[in-house]
Formats: sequence, structure tokens, C-alpha cells
Amino acid sequence: MIRIMARLTARAGSEAALRLVLQELCGPSRGEAGCLSYELFHNQDDAREFVTLERWADQAAADAHLATPHVARAIAQAGELLAQQPLIHRFRQVT
Amino acid sequence: MIRIMARLTARAGSEAALRLVLQELCGPSRGEAGCLSYELFHNQDDAREFVTLERWADQAAADAHLATPHVARAIAQAGELLAQQPLIHRFRQVT
Repeated sequence: MIRIMARLTARAGSEAALRLVLQELCGPSRGEAGCLSYELFHNQDDAREFVTLERWADQAAADAHLATPHVARAIAQAGELLAQQPLIHRFRQVT
Repeated sequence: MIRIMARLTARAGSEAALRLVLQELCGPSRGEAGCLSYELFHNQDDAREFVTLERWADQAAADAHLATPHVARAIAQAGELLAQQPLIHRFRQVT
């Protein structure tokens, strides 16, 4: 099982628009084969930051996600809204 | 419900020691009133970074956690092991 965390920082004033793009990404992502969970969070201490917490069955499922039309659409829509490149990391659960 | 994410970065060479301190913190934290979950993760793309994902019943429970003896002990033990101050943020689930 693979756990992915993506951190996305909106340009000032683009928080609501970025939130909408990310919200629309959650539904089709959850419908993918190998998606165990796909949650979206908003940082209450820094309103510009959103975080997705994703669990995938394996690395192949996580890789396949990045090649889907809904991810391509979200990347295109989010491009102008982001203050910096998304930070995407793989995590392993310790306990 | 309050979701907390704490990001902790070890000094180079102190990864295993920090991991042990954080592992030992999980058990008593999970036993606290108001703790809904308390998970520890290790960044597979940056071995120095650990992340806790915590769910608390409310802000009072999250605040009480910070005043416990096991948190005080972990802070004392982790002090020398950290490359920087922990980054602790509250998150709200969007979807």
C-alpha cells in the first residue's frame, strides 16, 4: 500500500478557485482501480495551502492516476492558480 | 473534529533516533480522551521527514494533548535530534 501526500499552495486570491479544481478531482480519482482513499484538506493556519491524502493499492495504481484525463484537466486548470509547483511525496506508515 | 498534521525533520544521522521518540509517543497519545486516531508516517522521498496525522474530538482535546507528560518527554528527547522546529498545522477536511 502506497500513501501519497500532495501539498498545493494557491496564489493569494486564488484559494476558492483552486479548492474547486481539487474538489472536482476527488470524485473520479476515488473511482479509479487501486484507489483506496482520496481525501482533500484545507490548512486552517495557512488558507493558501491544500493537502490531498491518498492511499493506493500499489505504485502502479499511483502512477496510473497521474496519467488519467481528470488529472491532466486539473493540472491545466490549476496552473494559473498555484503559487508554486505542487509538492508530492510518498509516505510509509510507521505505526 | 480537528485534524492536526505535524511535520518533523531530523538532523542528518538522527533519523532512527527521532523515529523511536515519535513511535513511543503514539501509544500514550492514542490512549488520551478525545484522540480519534494518531498515525506516524515516514517520507520515502526525504528520509529526514516524519509526519504525524492526528484526529481529535475537538480543540480542547488537541490542546490537552500538548500538556501531557508524554509530549513533554518527547519534546525533551527530540530537541537535539531535530533540524528545525516542528511545523504543526490544523486542517479541515474539504471532501
